[in-house]
Amino acid sequence: MALIGKLVICGVGLIGGSLAQALKRAGAVEQVVGIGRRPESLLRALELGVIDAMATTWAEALDGADVVVLATPVGQIEAQMVALAPHLASGTIVTDVGSTKRDVIEAAYRHLDASLAHVVPAHPIAGAEKSGVEAAFAELYRGRKVVVTPLPENEPAAVDKIRAMWSLCGASVVDMAPQDHDRVFAAVSHLPHLLAFGLVHDLAGRANAELLFSHAASGFRDFTRIAGSHPEMWRDICIANRQALLGELDQYLAELAYLRALLLSSDGERLEQLFDEARRARNAWAEQFVPTTTAE
Amino acid sequence: MALIGKLVICGVGLIGGSLAQALKRAGAVEQVVGIGRRPESLLRALELGVIDAMATTWAEALDGADVVVLATPVGQIEAQMVALAPHLASGTIVTDVGSTKRDVIEAAYRHLDASLAHVVPAHPIAGAEKSGVEAAFAELYRGRKVVVTPLPENEPAAVDKIRAMWSLCGASVVDMAPQDHDRVFAAVSHLPHLLAFGLVHDLAGRANAELLFSHAASGFRDFTRIAGSHPEMWRDICIANRQALLGELDQYLAELAYLRALLLSSDGERLEQLFDEARRARNAWAEQFVPTTTAE
Repeated sequence: MALIGKLVICGVGLIGGSLAQALKRAGAVEQVVGIGRRPESLLRALELGVIDAMATTWAEALDGADVVVLATPVGQIEAQMVALAPHLASGTIVTDVGSTKRDVIEAAYRHLDASLAHVVPAHPIAGAEKSGVEAAFAELYRGRKVVVTPLPENEPAAVDKIRAMWSLCGASVVDMAPQDHDRVFAAVSHLPHLLAFGLVHDLAGRANAELLFSHAASGFRDFTRIAGSHPEMWRDICIANRQALLGELDQYLAELAYLRALLLSSDGERLEQLFDEARRARNAWAEQFVPTTTAE
Repeated sequence: MALIGKLVICGVGLIGGSLAQALKRAGAVEQVVGIGRRPESLLRALELGVIDAMATTWAEALDGADVVVLATPVGQIEAQMVALAPHLASGTIVTDVGSTKRDVIEAAYRHLDASLAHVVPAHPIAGAEKSGVEAAFAELYRGRKVVVTPLPENEPAAVDKIRAMWSLCGASVVDMAPQDHDRVFAAVSHLPHLLAFGLVHDLAGRANAELLFSHAASGFRDFTRIAGSHPEMWRDICIANRQALLGELDQYLAELAYLRALLLSSDGERLEQLFDEARRARNAWAEQFVPTTTAE
């Protein structure tokens, strides 16, 4: 018998679609039902066999559902919780794939208060610049981390089922406190995205933008790859995690102020020392990290 | 008959070594002589067949030389000019591979005043984090740009020979004014390197650095790849081009101040608009740019 009978995915894009494909291939789900704001992308997911059926109402989607995955940009998760709450059966597990966790959990406390035993927030550390169900593939989560931030109210069996769901996709599951999660990813993911978007936006607005871009090489290519990411998704992440992100940005601005002072005083010795420390740390990290897809 | 008879390379590392290998494979050089501050790396270059002989003095190196390539970090170029000047025959062409051009040209005016007809500054837009002659390979320059910044004093035949030398390595040669060169590369190369070094240095200094790095994914990997670059080389570039780099850094700090204000005011609309403009510009650039090696 499959781990999950009826799986409902709200927002069948790269993340939700890849989850559906991975679970189907693992034989871990009997039926996948899609729901979302764009009928055309649900139809496309149906054509591609990523979902087995599409629902137009939450009442229909939730009827007999074992697990509901909220896979929309984080900015829409609260609205989806409001919409699904009246139709949520007591045994149905609600989880999400949001890149921020405190805002999702706050929304759950506001709108799913009666069901907190079965609301299990999670965040798969995977993705790509390409979005939409066309970009979905079953291998997206293999070798990736999935962070689960259980609530004190959670029923252990519900948390175990979400852990098992991601393990069957080939991911390694780790638990974190929501606040730790949001601070860590503000530093290693959200800030770099903001910095890359900012640099490209800055250069693109120049009178000599074409000349500049025409001389950009592979260093620029890799540094700015994440500036090709989904604007709405990253708007939501930055807004949802703005407190932690502002803290990281301010610490980085202090670092840049220090670098600026070293340049102003032509302090080559300290500059080289800083570059050397950065290189050692980066190389030590890279030796442990084995990259597969261009995941985020 | 080969384009170059005796080629002298000062600093036989990734850049100088790859140039030697490419020219040898193209049959464009009769003899390659290496000179530099590290005898052990010259011996290694000799063992690897990258150079045919090593010189211990400039007098010996320059005897009968057709072309001299200064391939050391830019911070050493002036000292090398001082050392070679007394032994420079009138017909010998002096070129360099420095990532900055105004400082190299100023040094040439100070120390090679009598030979300016044959001093042709250049900058191949290629490289990798890995440095040293072991990392050298003949294909490094294939499909890459090489910027030549000729002096008004240059003899056209000397400029043509340097253009031909790089063309034979598979590179496409473009001319630029030195000041334009330094401004353009401050924006698309030097600033991104500074930003990447800065981010990794910032995070590596945290009490929870291990936790942070353990959750960094491919977005972080690519954003920080250039933080693995050669510290001394980048110290020299940053110091040599500090005026242009400070200008770029200050403009970027203004961009970050704007982003910070959007976060503070939770202005999702403007944030998404900025991200969207950045993504469009980045994708438009990426469509034209066909990456090969991890070049810089």
